[in-house]
Amino acid sequence: MPQPIEDFYAVIPAGGVGSRLWPLSRADAPKFLHDLTGSGQTLLRDTWDRLEPLAGADRIAVVTGRAHRAAVEKELPGIPDKNVFLESEPRESAAAIGLAAAILSRREPNVIIGSFAADHVIRGLRTFEFAVQQAVAVAREGYICTIGIQPTEPSIGFGYILKSDELPVDGAPEAAFVERFVEKPDLETAKEYFADRRYLWNAGMFISRADVLLGEIAEQDPHLYAGLMDLAEAWDDRERRGPVVDRVWPTLTKIAIDYVVAEPAAAKGRLAVIPGHFDWDDVGDFASLIKLNSHGRKNDLAILGPNARVLADASSGIVVSQTKRVISLIGVHDIVVVDTDDALLVTTSENAQRVKGIVDALKLNGGTDVL
Amino acid sequence: MPQPIEDFYAVIPAGGVGSRLWPLSRADAPKFLHDLTGSGQTLLRDTWDRLEPLAGADRIAVVTGRAHRAAVEKELPGIPDKNVFLESEPRESAAAIGLAAAILSRREPNVIIGSFAADHVIRGLRTFEFAVQQAVAVAREGYICTIGIQPTEPSIGFGYILKSDELPVDGAPEAAFVERFVEKPDLETAKEYFADRRYLWNAGMFISRADVLLGEIAEQDPHLYAGLMDLAEAWDDRERRGPVVDRVWPTLTKIAIDYVVAEPAAAKGRLAVIPGHFDWDDVGDFASLIKLNSHGRKNDLAILGPNARVLADASSGIVVSQTKRVISLIGVHDIVVVDTDDALLVTTSENAQRVKGIVDALKLNGGTDVL
Repeated sequence: MPQPIEDFYAVIPAGGVGSRLWPLSRADAPKFLHDLTGSGQTLLRDTWDRLEPLAGADRIAVVTGRAHRAAVEKELPGIPDKNVFLESEPRESAAAIGLAAAILSRREPNVIIGSFAADHVIRGLRTFEFAVQQAVAVAREGYICTIGIQPTEPSIGFGYILKSDELPVDGAPEAAFVERFVEKPDLETAKEYFADRRYLWNAGMFISRADVLLGEIAEQDPHLYAGLMDLAEAWDDRERRGPVVDRVWPTLTKIAIDYVVAEPAAAKGRLAVIPGHFDWDDVGDFASLIKLNSHGRKNDLAILGPNARVLADASSGIVVSQTKRVISLIGVHDIVVVDTDDALLVTTSENAQRVKGIVDALKLNGGTDVL
Repeated sequence: MPQPIEDFYAVIPAGGVGSRLWPLSRADAPKFLHDLTGSGQTLLRDTWDRLEPLAGADRIAVVTGRAHRAAVEKELPGIPDKNVFLESEPRESAAAIGLAAAILSRREPNVIIGSFAADHVIRGLRTFEFAVQQAVAVAREGYICTIGIQPTEPSIGFGYILKSDELPVDGAPEAAFVERFVEKPDLETAKEYFADRRYLWNAGMFISRADVLLGEIAEQDPHLYAGLMDLAEAWDDRERRGPVVDRVWPTLTKIAIDYVVAEPAAAKGRLAVIPGHFDWDDVGDFASLIKLNSHGRKNDLAILGPNARVLADASSGIVVSQTKRVISLIGVHDIVVVDTDDALLVTTSENAQRVKGIVDALKLNGGTDVL
């Protein structure tokens, strides 16, 4: 176990429903509150466990919606009250991470923060820790640093980071500058990226001094910056927090941190990257969930659910069972069956991306009771 | 509406779980107690409604298991008490139909009985009635008469009846002798049968004088005959029935009526057939259920269940919904989804015959609670 890094604070933005994992993931039970790997605990708890050795239990903050406060506190009994930052409504990642940066920077001016999504899966903890330690070393030099995952296949499901020259920093032997970010590619382009080892997956991990991050926001979106400052100034005063949140939070710009911080910083040569050599997945859809749970065997049937009663004959894919029902599969391949109390999904892995369309259709057709 | 046929009694053997329709059809809710056509009523009730004009409500008997007595009486409020014949345990069709023949023959020596399964689907009522009227005319002449369905496709799912020469009987212009019965053929043979118009589907409908049927049983299986006589002699005496049933019923030969009556009679030139020109299906499996409910359109998704909430995108096959759950299908073809409170089946129409294997596996693996 490493010693916690002294000036480091981990931030876990726990938002996002994960529509492509409906009906498993939904408004009142988002992805981060599920065990998607059979580990026996939620992705949020896995994330906490991964960060605790790096930051210490007192120095992990979670940014989440008010509706999830109880669930988060139940999952993370060690989290100090003051480190649960509640959003009154979702306003995307720049507002969420910016809020954490603003509050923590006020509490501790030179703090380095690292933000790590609550619903990603990582395997290879020592490699992860080494990447974070390097990123913190780079952040101490005043850079914003991301961790880009070294691809293990030509994925079309992730955005990419193109790294350029080495960035010489003590304690960060793999640090490099970022040339630019690239949107999700088509398969042919993805194959080129995969062959060219300079392209890394964008896993949305950002490590920087809080004041450096806020400075970038100030430059790109002064309105968002001003709002975050107002929030942070009142935050730790129980009397004043509520009214300021009610007034300011709904006015904050809804934008991803990639656009307001990472890409502009890359353009100015202020963004660094550490290649991550660990297994990583954002578990974006059921195809990815199958891959995570099939132990690499293509004809396996993965089964998720502690009480699953599954009887399968010549079938592959995944069954997610949240009921006590007996689930029988016969001769269905790459199938996705998600059985919950009020909704059932049957599709195949190749249709995994279309699940969001069903969620949209339910919104339009009076099916909101199951969303 | 025809006048009921004076000397005719309809018998409905209502047994058989229909394992290949699990988990829809099961021990406590067998096939005949389901609405499988979207008609709004059970197959048993459809059968009753079909026979009532031919026999009259007072002259339809049902042979069923003790466990189904309440359900049968609920479905058929017009049935006289004395016409519900309860089996203490299933002993196949010769015992069931033989029991009805023995009881009814004692009550009315010259009665003609016709037996019609409780769980078949028939469309084309006037044609059906005309076939039964012809069969009764043939039965009056002392023959055992079956109704064989004129095939509409080269089916490998049914047994066949090969008809031979015409049998001249007044009121039965289509009557013919039966040359022999043929087991379910392979596809090539089925195609030959379909091209040769003399092959008819064996729908298990038998019409004959009760005493003629019993005579055939007496000749083929004297033990079964003696048992049936003992039962019939005591049946209408409330005091005596119970003990005799307890003693005799469990000893009766378990055999299909085809083997103990129809085939031997055919061999002796005592079996006649009337071709049935109506739509008929025994709804043996989910493939057949899809065909029945897809209105002939191959890419349709059939939906059964009065409260079904189905949202489908680019999917075909059938959904049977017995819950209030939202069921979503995306990009699955020829799919079979059967959603019940305690069991879920996901398969495809081409695997329909393998459903019985799951039922067998559940029996072996502690899944009897859902059978």
